[in-house]
Amino acid sequence: MGILYLLPVPLHPNDGTYDHQIIRNTVSTCKHVIAESTKMAKRHLYYFGHPHLDAVKIFILNEHTPETERSVWIHQIQQESSHWLLLSDAGCPAIADPGTELVLSAHRNGITVSSVGINCSITLAVMLSGLSGQRFLFEGYLPSETTKRRAQIKLLERQSASEKRAVFCIETPYRNAVLWQDLLLILHPKTLVFLGYHFGSTDAFSKTQTVNAWKNSEFVFKEKVPCIFGFMT
Amino acid sequence: MGILYLLPVPLHPNDGTYDHQIIRNTVSTCKHVIAESTKMAKRHLYYFGHPHLDAVKIFILNEHTPETERSVWIHQIQQESSHWLLLSDAGCPAIADPGTELVLSAHRNGITVSSVGINCSITLAVMLSGLSGQRFLFEGYLPSETTKRRAQIKLLERQSASEKRAVFCIETPYRNAVLWQDLLLILHPKTLVFLGYHFGSTDAFSKTQTVNAWKNSEFVFKEKVPCIFGFMT
Repeated sequence: MGILYLLPVPLHPNDGTYDHQIIRNTVSTCKHVIAESTKMAKRHLYYFGHPHLDAVKIFILNEHTPETERSVWIHQIQQESSHWLLLSDAGCPAIADPGTELVLSAHRNGITVSSVGINCSITLAVMLSGLSGQRFLFEGYLPSETTKRRAQIKLLERQSASEKRAVFCIETPYRNAVLWQDLLLILHPKTLVFLGYHFGSTDAFSKTQTVNAWKNSEFVFKEKVPCIFGFMT
Repeated sequence: MGILYLLPVPLHPNDGTYDHQIIRNTVSTCKHVIAESTKMAKRHLYYFGHPHLDAVKIFILNEHTPETERSVWIHQIQQESSHWLLLSDAGCPAIADPGTELVLSAHRNGITVSSVGINCSITLAVMLSGLSGQRFLFEGYLPSETTKRRAQIKLLERQSASEKRAVFCIETPYRNAVLWQDLLLILHPKTLVFLGYHFGSTDAFSKTQTVNAWKNSEFVFKEKVPCIFGFMT
């Protein structure tokens, strides 16, 4: 019997985030690592060939880590303009694993949140948004008809509130701007909204903030760029 | 300002699916490629260093591809015991991209469905299940109390039916067998159920079939192994 391989390919023609040498280079710039366990953190750093293992400081993040400790890390990333790694014992941090609150705190404090070695834009959105990686819904495309689209946004927001789910959706590039306007129009001012685009390129952008904060920012939505949207109440 | 990198790590201590050389080796065993476009298929095969580009046959899969053509591919994979690649123009096949029906047809015909280069078990589950990669819900952990867990399974199945969503969930390894029994007990006999485990290892397993087919198979559920479950009506 044969095999059907589903092969992920780079997200962008010049994807610099899905090459093992680039991952190794990125890892080597980090002297601070936040992980679920020291043992697995060391194993993974060794796997990625970190050049100065003994100089790396490892901090443990799990359900017992107090918020004050996370705040100290965030403060240090800000003050030192340093590169930090967040990793799980296995797989992707912040997806059914610790990290969501830390990522959200990074967004709140203007720290760039990035990733390497992932070639699925939905997975990247869940990780980088800081919205729930424990319960999330990928809704695909919302209705193209305005009234129906707005009703669906409202319905999904209610479900997000009642079921504590993050919601992610996409749109064809030429309708992205319309969906973006509707999200900011329909969602509650305090609902957290994530926008990610150009994943895999050097222009990659990821940002989560409240509807109000988006409205009050000087952000200009880029037309016709592949985007992924997310929100959570 | 600093950067917080969310770094995915291998899914298994001896993960052989997340190394570029392994990906290249896997790609080189495939002489048949199903893709969204010839141009991008060639670009990606070149990126992965396919040694015999001219000998590769490329088949186009999009919303216009008739079911009869997919059946011919499936028949050929079976008859020739050959290795085929499915890939998108960018990112992951079968997630907000074509491929779901093909994967489901592969499962129905006993063809092994596999992947390389993905280190997120939820992403792998969506791709390899053949359940909807257009609309899906990751529910995390279901309630541990039996009555509540069964009610939640029933509720999620109703939502799957009404909203055409695939549902994925996980459990702590020592409760996996209980959840598995409940899924087969509570879900409709014709509901499709996916089980994946040991992703990243050479024992990786992925299978989707109806509740009835699972019940009538000689499958023995492995205890205490990291699993991911999925279902769709």
